[in-house]
Amino acid sequence: MGDSVKRLAVLGSTGSIGRQTLQVVRRLSSRFRVVALTAGRNAALLTEQITEFHPKYAHCASEDAGRLAAEVLSPEEIASHDDVDCVVVAISGNAALAATLAAVRAGKEVALANKESLVMAGELITGEAKRNGARILPIDSEHSAVWQCLVGEPQPPERIILTASGGPFRGYSAEQLAEVTAHEALAHPSWQMGSKVTIDSATLMNKGLEVIEARWLFDVPFDRIDVVIHPQSVIHSMVEFADGSVKAQLSSPDMRLPIQYALTYPERVANPDLPQLDFATVGELTFEPPDLAVFPCLEMAINAGRDGGTRPAVLCGADEAAVGLFLDGKVGFGDIPRLVNAVLEEHRPVATPSASPSLEEIIAAEAWARERVSSMSTEAGRC
Amino acid sequence: MGDSVKRLAVLGSTGSIGRQTLQVVRRLSSRFRVVALTAGRNAALLTEQITEFHPKYAHCASEDAGRLAAEVLSPEEIASHDDVDCVVVAISGNAALAATLAAVRAGKEVALANKESLVMAGELITGEAKRNGARILPIDSEHSAVWQCLVGEPQPPERIILTASGGPFRGYSAEQLAEVTAHEALAHPSWQMGSKVTIDSATLMNKGLEVIEARWLFDVPFDRIDVVIHPQSVIHSMVEFADGSVKAQLSSPDMRLPIQYALTYPERVANPDLPQLDFATVGELTFEPPDLAVFPCLEMAINAGRDGGTRPAVLCGADEAAVGLFLDGKVGFGDIPRLVNAVLEEHRPVATPSASPSLEEIIAAEAWARERVSSMSTEAGRC
Repeated sequence: MGDSVKRLAVLGSTGSIGRQTLQVVRRLSSRFRVVALTAGRNAALLTEQITEFHPKYAHCASEDAGRLAAEVLSPEEIASHDDVDCVVVAISGNAALAATLAAVRAGKEVALANKESLVMAGELITGEAKRNGARILPIDSEHSAVWQCLVGEPQPPERIILTASGGPFRGYSAEQLAEVTAHEALAHPSWQMGSKVTIDSATLMNKGLEVIEARWLFDVPFDRIDVVIHPQSVIHSMVEFADGSVKAQLSSPDMRLPIQYALTYPERVANPDLPQLDFATVGELTFEPPDLAVFPCLEMAINAGRDGGTRPAVLCGADEAAVGLFLDGKVGFGDIPRLVNAVLEEHRPVATPSASPSLEEIIAAEAWARERVSSMSTEAGRC
Repeated sequence: MGDSVKRLAVLGSTGSIGRQTLQVVRRLSSRFRVVALTAGRNAALLTEQITEFHPKYAHCASEDAGRLAAEVLSPEEIASHDDVDCVVVAISGNAALAATLAAVRAGKEVALANKESLVMAGELITGEAKRNGARILPIDSEHSAVWQCLVGEPQPPERIILTASGGPFRGYSAEQLAEVTAHEALAHPSWQMGSKVTIDSATLMNKGLEVIEARWLFDVPFDRIDVVIHPQSVIHSMVEFADGSVKAQLSSPDMRLPIQYALTYPERVANPDLPQLDFATVGELTFEPPDLAVFPCLEMAINAGRDGGTRPAVLCGADEAAVGLFLDGKVGFGDIPRLVNAVLEEHRPVATPSASPSLEEIIAAEAWARERVSSMSTEAGRC
């Protein structure tokens, strides 16, 4: 293999994004070498992946993982290893933060699918990336769309317009929404995703988190990021420029496209797995403003992002716990924003002299928020 | 004024595109100096423009033009003059060809609004542009959209998708179409344009001409250029890449945006005249395939472009004459494709050893076709 082969570490290789990353690598095998794979609990699939891709390094968080046929290093060691050119961060939740930070501090190319990294620690991570010459490439249909629209444009965008499908409850009243079940909420109209992000899509919390991510990825202030509901999920996001021109990126909903673009950027590569968009079947594309009253999580998230400090971490922790309770049938759909809001109101930010909290403070705030949601729901249950 | 001021020649300054070009220049006056203006018949407006912009050079084709307050040079002399950085070719019809050719041979930046230049002489003009380091920048909502979508992309497009409003007779049957009047045909749903291009929009000939232009502007073969009907005229065109990703450019229909982009490229500049796109009022965007049976001009134009040589010139001449007869009430709407087709069938290409005819051969073929249409219609009238 020549120098042009990109050496990849795939953190979270057994999850949905991790598996699709390996599908792309399999198709474009002459371009990439998988040098490291890490997983959480799915030791069996990780073992299979190791047999297929022969990484030098691996890690499995599960305690009962057997001997892996690769040298075991921690995700942080892998993320900053000299043998790695590009770190795909496909770990979900706050477990990704330390590895993402290690990768940017080591000046790596970071293909980032994890949402919490930039939501909870956007200032810290993008600051370290800038200082160390690391490049953060989004793996996410919306941010990839924005990125693709910005390619070659010499100036920052005037406005970023993130599209949202609106989820399965678009058009519902607050009363109707209070009645919905986890089963209904898990039936997302456009995308197949994990259950946490599917519920976040249904509450629009997910779009709020994406606004925070966009703020850090593209260094654009919050008041220049809009959300528009676009139920067909064909336009993945848009950018408006100073002259009023708008660019949009469109495709069939398939995560392998943004994954591949992050890996092959700036090149685009034909891949028979990637579907072509057929305008004969696209039908109509529609747009409407989000209903902020019925879906309060959107504004709640944006406000937490605007406030900064540890508030986005509190938002994430509270939401994670509240969604977990909803999925377990312990609270209603309308309790998700109520619990998140109550915890945000209770939160007293740590008094750091700088505006930017440390990783430890961020992690602690997130844990505190999760813990507060579960005590609140237990207290409420006792009443 | 510093070195960064771009010295403009506006050829056809009294037409619709010329006047809008001067509106943009007025708004961004610190960036541009108008060094030359030329007009066809409207000597009065040209005189006003000369009083306002003080160009060094001017030209008026009208014989009864009085003394112009500028040195008189021919459009070709102006287009290749050392004092000119950028030539805006806003002349309509085949009168633009010689000036466009002079500009590209002189290695100028050519902001091209004229359609006939690339339709009739695309191979010649783009070949000369390449040889002489001239850059052709499209002023046209569709080609500007394609260009904007290609900015920063390192590879050629997989497919260009030109959008077409479909004109006022979208959905008509061939029988309904035969009955339409010039008055109905001049009522274009989205754009205010001259009467020739408005009729060409109604027959879809205009879109066929744009396909030929796109082939030369972006060096893309005909089988990679599609046309899709998009009645709302919000998406001005799209580009599909090798990975299946599609980029689209959207804006309110205002020609000042593509004009300004061609003048300020690669920069984008705020201009209070340029309307912002409001997604709350955009409503729905729809797409449908063009009806090739009812609107035969589209395929006729693409085939003439594919055949090359003098056939696109014959197409242009025959269409110009046929549309003139329709506007004068002398032939029906359905006679436009019939006449153009008859003249194309009659045409015997000049036997040049190279595939690319000379400017003189192109001009002669166009004149022949115009002449043939008028004799055909006279003959038919006598029967």
